[in-house]
Amino acid sequence: MKQTIKTTVKRAPKRGFYDSETIYKILDAHFICQIAFIYEGYPVIIPTIYGRSENEIYIHGASVSRMILNLEKGLPISINVTQTDGIVLARSAFHHSLNYQSVTIFGEAVLVTSDDDRYKALEIISNQIIPDRWEEVRLPNDKEMKATKILKIAITEASAKIRTGPPIDDKPDYDLPIWAGVLPINTSYSAPIADAVLDKNIPLPESVKKLIENKG
Amino acid sequence: MKQTIKTTVKRAPKRGFYDSETIYKILDAHFICQIAFIYEGYPVIIPTIYGRSENEIYIHGASVSRMILNLEKGLPISINVTQTDGIVLARSAFHHSLNYQSVTIFGEAVLVTSDDDRYKALEIISNQIIPDRWEEVRLPNDKEMKATKILKIAITEASAKIRTGPPIDDKPDYDLPIWAGVLPINTSYSAPIADAVLDKNIPLPESVKKLIENKG
Repeated sequence: MKQTIKTTVKRAPKRGFYDSETIYKILDAHFICQIAFIYEGYPVIIPTIYGRSENEIYIHGASVSRMILNLEKGLPISINVTQTDGIVLARSAFHHSLNYQSVTIFGEAVLVTSDDDRYKALEIISNQIIPDRWEEVRLPNDKEMKATKILKIAITEASAKIRTGPPIDDKPDYDLPIWAGVLPINTSYSAPIADAVLDKNIPLPESVKKLIENKG
Repeated sequence: MKQTIKTTVKRAPKRGFYDSETIYKILDAHFICQIAFIYEGYPVIIPTIYGRSENEIYIHGASVSRMILNLEKGLPISINVTQTDGIVLARSAFHHSLNYQSVTIFGEAVLVTSDDDRYKALEIISNQIIPDRWEEVRLPNDKEMKATKILKIAITEASAKIRTGPPIDDKPDYDLPIWAGVLPINTSYSAPIADAVLDKNIPLPESVKKLIENKG
């Protein structure tokens, strides 16, 4: 990834990463991003789901949504995905920190127009959240496709910022009798809750079973 | 909270909430927000920690950080906090959704200037992440206070957006033999990892024990 003025990590530059592998890995572990754009002179942030494929991020929304109607104009946007891995407890208040993995992308959205590409993009977004769920469901019909717009954003101006490891205290503070370390934060799935009106004979689908196995 | 054009939830308006109680509850369950501001004509998003006290959000950063130097000018900003509670699996691809709780605030930051207020604000941010940790650590010295700036943002233009409950499918789809329901997402803490160089006789502090008890 070409490092630019926008993407260069200024605070704690050692935490900055610019290779696609690192950026993709963080993006692929998540499905919610925050998108910022400028609307009537002020910044707007909207959380939304996304899917990554190759060097593109896909997002979707109702054809009439304010976010989509603005973004399809090709406004400059910024996207952030952040995962918090742990609270870093230092001996001093000042050196408390977080372990995290974060990606920021600058760019602009382009409307996906061909029917094939639009359908494929929805599958990509679906797979980002629950791999293979697309094979199990009633797929979008014409009316639903018309009600939906899909945008793609090239991952060309992007950076990751990552902190890992123990607290780093000032030398004299290491002698203080104060506990220091990391409190890890985990995200997991708990037992699925079937829709109350679901036929009891319909078993839990493979897609959900696999998701729980991987991150239950 | 006064509803404004900016804060009114347009998509799925039934999911919009404008009362302080709902907004505070979501803010208080978290400590990371995304802040957007406009820099040289494009939007920038930065994830950062915050603390809420009364009707204010406090954030902090290095005195020389680009975010702080820009925000202290009183630029328009937007803040978002989003918690994902579950994946909502419908019978149709189209009606898949997420259960979530999200808060968006519009406003501008004001530099906190008095020494007392600055110190108090750092304690508020610290308490947001680990209540009572402030009582256990080596507190900020003059040099550290000088290296830190604190901004506050009034929670006057804000809204929450919340989705809960099962999938809502189109009527005919309820007859399809497709599993539908909610896959809950949880965030929890796992066993603390003591700093490798920590004196083994220093016990886990009360603050961490309490945090794990509440959300372990």
